[in-house]
Amino acid sequence: MIPTRTDVVAAARRIDGRVHRTPVLTSRTLNALLDAALYFKCENLQRTGAFKMRGATNAVALLPDDVGTVATHSSGNHGAALALAAAEAGRRAIIVVPSNGRASKRAAIERYGAEIVDCGPTLEARETTLNEVVDSTGAAFVPPYDDPRIIAGAGTAALELLEQCPGLDQVWVPVGGGGLAAGTVLAVDGAAEVVLAEPELARDAKDSLESGTLLPALPPKTIADGLRTALGRLNFEILRRAGCRVHMASEGGIERWTDQIAQVMKIVVEPSAVVTLAAMVENTGAARGRVGVILSGGNYGP
Amino acid sequence: MIPTRTDVVAAARRIDGRVHRTPVLTSRTLNALLDAALYFKCENLQRTGAFKMRGATNAVALLPDDVGTVATHSSGNHGAALALAAAEAGRRAIIVVPSNGRASKRAAIERYGAEIVDCGPTLEARETTLNEVVDSTGAAFVPPYDDPRIIAGAGTAALELLEQCPGLDQVWVPVGGGGLAAGTVLAVDGAAEVVLAEPELARDAKDSLESGTLLPALPPKTIADGLRTALGRLNFEILRRAGCRVHMASEGGIERWTDQIAQVMKIVVEPSAVVTLAAMVENTGAARGRVGVILSGGNYGP
Repeated sequence: MIPTRTDVVAAARRIDGRVHRTPVLTSRTLNALLDAALYFKCENLQRTGAFKMRGATNAVALLPDDVGTVATHSSGNHGAALALAAAEAGRRAIIVVPSNGRASKRAAIERYGAEIVDCGPTLEARETTLNEVVDSTGAAFVPPYDDPRIIAGAGTAALELLEQCPGLDQVWVPVGGGGLAAGTVLAVDGAAEVVLAEPELARDAKDSLESGTLLPALPPKTIADGLRTALGRLNFEILRRAGCRVHMASEGGIERWTDQIAQVMKIVVEPSAVVTLAAMVENTGAARGRVGVILSGGNYGP
Repeated sequence: MIPTRTDVVAAARRIDGRVHRTPVLTSRTLNALLDAALYFKCENLQRTGAFKMRGATNAVALLPDDVGTVATHSSGNHGAALALAAAEAGRRAIIVVPSNGRASKRAAIERYGAEIVDCGPTLEARETTLNEVVDSTGAAFVPPYDDPRIIAGAGTAALELLEQCPGLDQVWVPVGGGGLAAGTVLAVDGAAEVVLAEPELARDAKDSLESGTLLPALPPKTIADGLRTALGRLNFEILRRAGCRVHMASEGGIERWTDQIAQVMKIVVEPSAVVTLAAMVENTGAARGRVGVILSGGNYGP
């Protein structure tokens, strides 16, 4: 069943106090550059360094009491978030990690106390390995993005942003698996235009939404490692119904803005988080008026 | 005349809306490391990237209407702050910049529209050059730290922190010229212990406060470029009366924590801002209970 704004509001109440209400930052320099008023929702400053903590916390809170173990597959941020959410709820977590993930993200998963199971770099390898884990341990699968509990949790970031900055004209979000994008659509619920941004090298969401057919992921080549996955089926449906536009960002732009944001705004962001800003710069006029921007994460290291 | 908490409260009202109310961030990882509850007041996310915007804005707001030009000497952050505060008030700014300042800070001063006059790397060279500028232009001197308007403005960061985090046991601040430290003492006004941190290589504040005599600055060798100046006379008096303890930080600790904070907290800080954290780690037990930490700035670049 497709979740609604009501589910996002319920998720916000459920995770209150377990996740940070992240700050919104502004930059005179970036406003001048884009001729718009930008409001950056800093989910890089969220617990575990990414918005993923919202969905993971919501999903774990909704599990039946007799579920002792959770499992997922994740290139990083969802894995770390589920590891911490499970640890705080007194449950065991097993994370299937593809071999092409960042070492720093893998280290975070371990630091939060989860067990890691390795797999190959494809979605197929992830799913096969995850199924083996679930079969052998009886763990409850908490999917990384294509799940109503995860979507509703992710949407709480936009819900907060709308409270913190009333009267936004647009809300920009990166799209990979689409959980954040879909959750944002539900939270915003027509009060502003939700605009998606995607790396040109991972343009399956753009092509899927424009063709009306859910297409598979492209080879995982973009530096924006959080956006390499295919768009989820439920998320595709939510984004398609909303008629969201998708703007493209070049790899050069993504790399440049990852560095520039640190210089200009004094915050650390990961490449996946600046795809929005790179797409705004590369698509003149696309950002208009009062513009919310969800900076999805800050886990960027060797 | 020595300013009081009343002056800090008045400054807060005066600069409201012209400076950011900066967020307070926490880190489970750092709390565990130091066995304390740390609350980081992020003045690195302040306009111009440092708390200096508070004092500069307060001082410019207090100038008589007929003052068309302001001038100061600054290794960077105060210069950038005065440049922007002056520009927004429609006044001309001339900044005397010593040759040992960071290029990125110099670039910021220019970006905000101020004129730069170069000088040698000593306090004496700064003061001589500044006097020449004042004599030839009739500019009003806005000192970098040893001035009641600047101290009261700087204190507004701690005033906000106390509102955002009631019941703090300590507030840690870095000490260089001492404007932030003195302003914090006034704002806190006995409600918590104010603890100072200083680079071992620039320990004039510690030696001055422990000997009861204001001593000159040491050679400007520390990587914490914002803390190389001598303690100001007025600030010395305020800190001496308050009986503040000063803890030392090693250069290695300052370098390490500048990088570590970016990894752990996803924010960019300059070396001067992490002297507190380095000193806490190097002085076991010095940080106790609920601990406010003022992260003074984030302007760190080539």
